[in-house]
Amino acid sequence: MEQQTMVRVAVDAMGGDNAPAAVVEGAVLAVCEDSRVHAVLVGKEDIIREELKKYTYDKERISVVDAGEVITNDEAPVMAIRRKKDSSIVKAMNLVKNNEADAFVSAGSTGAILVGAQLIIGRLPGVERPPLAPLIPTETGVALLIDCGANVDARPSHLVQFARMGSVYMEHVLGVRNPRVAIVNIGAEEEKGNTLVKGTFPLLKNCNEINFTGSIEARDIPSGAADVIVCEAFVGNVILKLYEGLASTLLSTVKKGMMSTFRSKVGALLVKPALKKTLKSMDTAEYGGAPMLGLKGLVVKVHGSSEKAEMKNAILQCIAFKEQNISEKIRTSIEVNENK
Amino acid sequence: MEQQTMVRVAVDAMGGDNAPAAVVEGAVLAVCEDSRVHAVLVGKEDIIREELKKYTYDKERISVVDAGEVITNDEAPVMAIRRKKDSSIVKAMNLVKNNEADAFVSAGSTGAILVGAQLIIGRLPGVERPPLAPLIPTETGVALLIDCGANVDARPSHLVQFARMGSVYMEHVLGVRNPRVAIVNIGAEEEKGNTLVKGTFPLLKNCNEINFTGSIEARDIPSGAADVIVCEAFVGNVILKLYEGLASTLLSTVKKGMMSTFRSKVGALLVKPALKKTLKSMDTAEYGGAPMLGLKGLVVKVHGSSEKAEMKNAILQCIAFKEQNISEKIRTSIEVNENK
Repeated sequence: MEQQTMVRVAVDAMGGDNAPAAVVEGAVLAVCEDSRVHAVLVGKEDIIREELKKYTYDKERISVVDAGEVITNDEAPVMAIRRKKDSSIVKAMNLVKNNEADAFVSAGSTGAILVGAQLIIGRLPGVERPPLAPLIPTETGVALLIDCGANVDARPSHLVQFARMGSVYMEHVLGVRNPRVAIVNIGAEEEKGNTLVKGTFPLLKNCNEINFTGSIEARDIPSGAADVIVCEAFVGNVILKLYEGLASTLLSTVKKGMMSTFRSKVGALLVKPALKKTLKSMDTAEYGGAPMLGLKGLVVKVHGSSEKAEMKNAILQCIAFKEQNISEKIRTSIEVNENK
Repeated sequence: MEQQTMVRVAVDAMGGDNAPAAVVEGAVLAVCEDSRVHAVLVGKEDIIREELKKYTYDKERISVVDAGEVITNDEAPVMAIRRKKDSSIVKAMNLVKNNEADAFVSAGSTGAILVGAQLIIGRLPGVERPPLAPLIPTETGVALLIDCGANVDARPSHLVQFARMGSVYMEHVLGVRNPRVAIVNIGAEEEKGNTLVKGTFPLLKNCNEINFTGSIEARDIPSGAADVIVCEAFVGNVILKLYEGLASTLLSTVKKGMMSTFRSKVGALLVKPALKKTLKSMDTAEYGGAPMLGLKGLVVKVHGSSEKAEMKNAILQCIAFKEQNISEKIRTSIEVNENK
């Protein structure tokens, strides 16, 4: 029998609003759902062990690495990574660096994760900036929004690399054949846009290895007009956050409307089960975390407010990344296409 | 008896997907709804007169100015404005310039309107860039999103002027006392952001004449966390378009969910009337058009797909602008605050 891959995922047990309880439970759920997962919970050992006692699971596939410190959201990222050597983030990233883990999943400080990933795990050769690339739900499935990280004021060459990395991810992790790559713009025509977009557009047109379909207006993102949505981090962050905010406002408006009359309240009871199921498809939490691409290992950032389901999905997401050897494919794509 | 203000609105009868029918009907509705409105329909006279025959209205308050040419969306704006002297846009803007009209409303080419407004009507003294500032619906009312125009790659001084102009508009046209002004950012802390935002933040903090509340993340825009939302045009355009796209996708998802089972279909019938009413409050079309501020006259850009209701609202919007003397208030605000 062929030997099964074992995917070792270092999990930041102390990161996020619901840590450690939701993180530990998410790891247990992931291990129970897929036999390829080995979770390494990194954080305050005694607390983690206390949480683990609540569950039944394969003891061989969850281990604990003690880390006495925690990096909080208010700390300056660079300083925190440099000083808190015994923090869960730094210790877990060192596991990835030393090849004792394949991936790192955290709901902790985005800043510290982005900085730590570059300083500790390191970029793949040729990669200028590692982007943070969450999946966002669309009417027809999901799209990869690349970049939503902290590296603002990008250059055209960065965006071209984002397009290449995003293509590899969507094709090999999500199984989208020949993914459509588009650049966020304020009009469909080539001459539209700001300096960055105008500088990037012709470069993307010249990339034969990706399926570049041109500009995409923000209006067409939710309907699923592209698979890889390229933009610089400030714009990506605005898109991602507005997605969250607007979805929550619109749904609360729908609810308010349904509860406004006696007649509509009765109708709401009948509509609810079907509606819940459909709306789940537009919930960002369903799609795991945001991978940070272009590193010598996988880093997945999950939302700070994540519950066990999101943690579980983010851990399971690491399987395809390792099995498909995404880091190696990204390294090759950058190397081959930039040295030709 | 005090004499009533007469607000003369030049209307581009040829602009937009539903011109001239929806434009003419919108103008008739505006004239019938408010006795202060005088509409000047600019475009092909014979066609306009033919449309007007369908309605009953005060003939004294709708006039027609013939314009033989039409500027389309595909034309290069600068060239179109320079060459098509007999177009509805150029002729209507000349009415504003020559003080034969107080305002100009159009659903035509955004590019041509933005260019024409600057070349023909002209900026107020001291105004560096006239922003396009649509009202977007929020959970608690509306917010002014400034700038969504075509002037990308803005400088900090532009954004400071947007904040001042937006404050004047929200206070005097919408009646919001001491409007909260926030800058779109990717985090709430002062040190976050791109070069533009970091450069603008301290300048806004020093503006004592506005109620600057700091950064706003895109997530908090729909809930109504600020009244004036300052950003450069590329980001503003992304926010506005994503608002439209996401609202339409989410509502179609809600509908799909409601129609998915027999039980939910029955519920949908009961829910529908109440839901329709509530959702109307989140429909951008309800709030008229986007004013272009900082000009020697008012220009209002309405959506290309506008129907009669949007046209009517955009025309009525011009009343408060004139009665409150907004151009003069903006001129004073820029002059007083930049020369102190």
